[in-house]
Amino acid sequence: MSELYKRLRKYADSDYLPMHMPGHKRRVGEMGNPYCIDLTEIEGFDNLHHAEGLLLEVQKRAADLYGSEETHYLINGSTAGILSAVSGCTSFGGKLLIGRNAHKSVYHGALLRGLKLRFLYPQYMGSMGINGAILPKDVENALKEDPDIEAVLITSPTYDGVVSDIAEIAKVVHRCHIPLIVDEAHGAHFPFSEHFPTDSVSAGADVVIHSLHKTLPSLTQTALIHLNGPLVIREKIRKYLAVYQTSSPSYVLMAGMDQCVLWVREHREDFEIFYMELQKLRGRLRKMKRLRLLEVPGMDPSKILVSVLGTGLCGTELSDLLRERYHIELEMACSTYICGITTVADTRESLSRMGDAFLEIDRVLGEDLKGYPKVHEKDTEDMIRKTESVCTLLEAEEREKEFIKTEDAKGRVSGDFISVYPPGIPILAPGERMTGEILEQILEYEKQGLTMHGVNDGRILVLRERSMDGQNILSDGEELIGKRYNLQSTG
Amino acid sequence: MSELYKRLRKYADSDYLPMHMPGHKRRVGEMGNPYCIDLTEIEGFDNLHHAEGLLLEVQKRAADLYGSEETHYLINGSTAGILSAVSGCTSFGGKLLIGRNAHKSVYHGALLRGLKLRFLYPQYMGSMGINGAILPKDVENALKEDPDIEAVLITSPTYDGVVSDIAEIAKVVHRCHIPLIVDEAHGAHFPFSEHFPTDSVSAGADVVIHSLHKTLPSLTQTALIHLNGPLVIREKIRKYLAVYQTSSPSYVLMAGMDQCVLWVREHREDFEIFYMELQKLRGRLRKMKRLRLLEVPGMDPSKILVSVLGTGLCGTELSDLLRERYHIELEMACSTYICGITTVADTRESLSRMGDAFLEIDRVLGEDLKGYPKVHEKDTEDMIRKTESVCTLLEAEEREKEFIKTEDAKGRVSGDFISVYPPGIPILAPGERMTGEILEQILEYEKQGLTMHGVNDGRILVLRERSMDGQNILSDGEELIGKRYNLQSTG
Repeated sequence: MSELYKRLRKYADSDYLPMHMPGHKRRVGEMGNPYCIDLTEIEGFDNLHHAEGLLLEVQKRAADLYGSEETHYLINGSTAGILSAVSGCTSFGGKLLIGRNAHKSVYHGALLRGLKLRFLYPQYMGSMGINGAILPKDVENALKEDPDIEAVLITSPTYDGVVSDIAEIAKVVHRCHIPLIVDEAHGAHFPFSEHFPTDSVSAGADVVIHSLHKTLPSLTQTALIHLNGPLVIREKIRKYLAVYQTSSPSYVLMAGMDQCVLWVREHREDFEIFYMELQKLRGRLRKMKRLRLLEVPGMDPSKILVSVLGTGLCGTELSDLLRERYHIELEMACSTYICGITTVADTRESLSRMGDAFLEIDRVLGEDLKGYPKVHEKDTEDMIRKTESVCTLLEAEEREKEFIKTEDAKGRVSGDFISVYPPGIPILAPGERMTGEILEQILEYEKQGLTMHGVNDGRILVLRERSMDGQNILSDGEELIGKRYNLQSTG
Repeated sequence: MSELYKRLRKYADSDYLPMHMPGHKRRVGEMGNPYCIDLTEIEGFDNLHHAEGLLLEVQKRAADLYGSEETHYLINGSTAGILSAVSGCTSFGGKLLIGRNAHKSVYHGALLRGLKLRFLYPQYMGSMGINGAILPKDVENALKEDPDIEAVLITSPTYDGVVSDIAEIAKVVHRCHIPLIVDEAHGAHFPFSEHFPTDSVSAGADVVIHSLHKTLPSLTQTALIHLNGPLVIREKIRKYLAVYQTSSPSYVLMAGMDQCVLWVREHREDFEIFYMELQKLRGRLRKMKRLRLLEVPGMDPSKILVSVLGTGLCGTELSDLLRERYHIELEMACSTYICGITTVADTRESLSRMGDAFLEIDRVLGEDLKGYPKVHEKDTEDMIRKTESVCTLLEAEEREKEFIKTEDAKGRVSGDFISVYPPGIPILAPGERMTGEILEQILEYEKQGLTMHGVNDGRILVLRERSMDGQNILSDGEELIGKRYNLQSTG
């Protein structure tokens, strides 16, 4: 038997409490041996890429559940939905306005389509170490400054459960007659109780992407894309869905999606029970004295964020404690906080067991635990707003690159994403210039020992300044697409 | 219970014999309720996109099985492997040499990367109605004509099981110091018996893509990409694997891949038994008097192709007969022939049952069955060689388009693929000009009632010739990338 399979089964058979994705929590959902129902597009079983029968029906059922005009199954995750939305709502080389805290698939879509990116910066909540909402007025200002923006993409909720005012943002965006795409991957459960934030389909977004597996009882890699209103060329998005997704979609995943939709339809009251249990849990966690439950007004209550700031523990230590002593596995841990994902598939017992563990740890947390002073509470907002884009992601990707020492990088153009976690927003994206100010900040973060992505042993990847024949091939705004450059390994 | 799930289970529980994908045939492979082992990237379970532990191990096991230097799991099918290979082996706007009979994902990769395509035409076997091999000398000539081709992509075996001489083609391609990519999606079983054709990893191809689910016991949507030799920038291909595949890969699919690899490793003798049974089956089928077993020297013996030419039946009628009277479901049926996929998961009984059915139908096939004279035996090779490319797929995609009557399309540039099945090769690709000769051929096919893709009710999609402001925006070879055009729905 496969070692991977054995390990997965062992975890399944253990008493570990999954406070992470997938949302079915191994409790809701049942289909027997998947090999038995794993099929291809034979007669009577339709074709996902040209659905006319059975698969059209199941997708309509998903559309009905979400009150959407048109809904497509995604078997390559929200990633496929985001790539298709970005590709289908822009012209090649066009301009897209996105939250700087977008998922990497948004940046990948921009790379593939040669897009010029304009950025919206979420409110940064320094004291909590998390990203906040994106404000409608910031969207409005950005659209005024750049009238040739073709579409806007917002991530709401964030990984941490923080939502933006999508209804208001949709109004602002629609005034410019362009579509609003919402990456609502973490909010697929929003429509099913009024206690959750407003979902983006109701709020008027044109394209909404939902991961089914993150917060609902569905198999990993399953997601939905909803298309609404007159502002998107649906045929173009549909075309890209067939580009980014396998021509052999899994019927196991598709059957799992339909089972999820049916389950939700028949268990609406479970969401109310879930919410009441969540309220009890949050009430208990608010009483912690050293650990701190992070709460942002209007946020998704199902995301349990606990800050370790000032406790002497770092987030990963808390997470290790929970795993080792309490057999509770969390979704995420970083230096300053942890995140547990709860879903409607959790039980009163599972939520109460997590609550007990946090309260016990909080009780025993003395002042004498080993110090972890290197927390990062400074507001990085001003710094990251000052980035200067020299070329698109595609142009940067196609260019020759080299690794140099970070301290020598002033004035150079980045060949990779550089970010610090949290909040995980790119400090520099490929094609952006390393100013003196940004460089100082990066060196300071390094000195503090923070988790830096894109910096390896004090070296970063930058675009080469001179081509092989000695010509300077980099000048601001230079149009490189269509020209050919020798490529070097970026690794 | 989900209607889709119910239908899948009903088919599973029926006596229908699956002579189609997936290759496990519902017989080999077992994992119990998939929800139990469906997980996310928690501690100890590694991360497919940065594999360092468990997932690196299982991918190394796959590499060992295929004798490859580096192998990656694909959870978005061969599609993801082909998109990544095409993207990783070319520069943006570069030139790629492909078999005209490539899978649509190859064309999609070219679309995304703005590639200029040069074509190799397989030998067309008019009397069988199928595509043959691509000849090394054709590859050599194409590379001589176009020294700036960056990579070559060949589909071998074809969907029908016809292979090209990859060892010889690899030599030709390597002389130009560029990589050879082989879409061997249908040949994942090749290395496991000397009776199958030579596999492309052994034959020296630089990038090889294998669908595990097509011909081996693995779940649908699972595939492998192999990277070998010094001619590919592996880091670039790896980067695109993370672009085209979900950031939440399914552990169910991954566990299924490892189980498949282990199964193959432990059941090598089953491939010999399978081959012997195949030989028996083929021997019986060769004796048919009206139906005809199609055989091409060196082809994959596991693909059972049966021609209906001259029988008075068309392929879909034969396929309906097999389904309704014999409960045998085939992989594919077109006007002139059918294709059944057999795999190592078939049994002596299943192969013999299929043989019995064919022989019985052959016996009762009288001359008086309703006629189906519209078979297409003409060699289309000369015609399709004469295409003239006006712009890239990307440029064509970004342009305004309109539907016009086919007969008015002379001189216009196609906005879609137009093909006739069989052999399914594009007669016109987007961006190619409709010459008088091609138009005549298309009208002739239509008159014959052949299955035409890209022609709907006598109308085809073409690029608009004039922009909104009356300017002619189409001239041969015009460089459109980077400029912006209003888009219209292509639907």
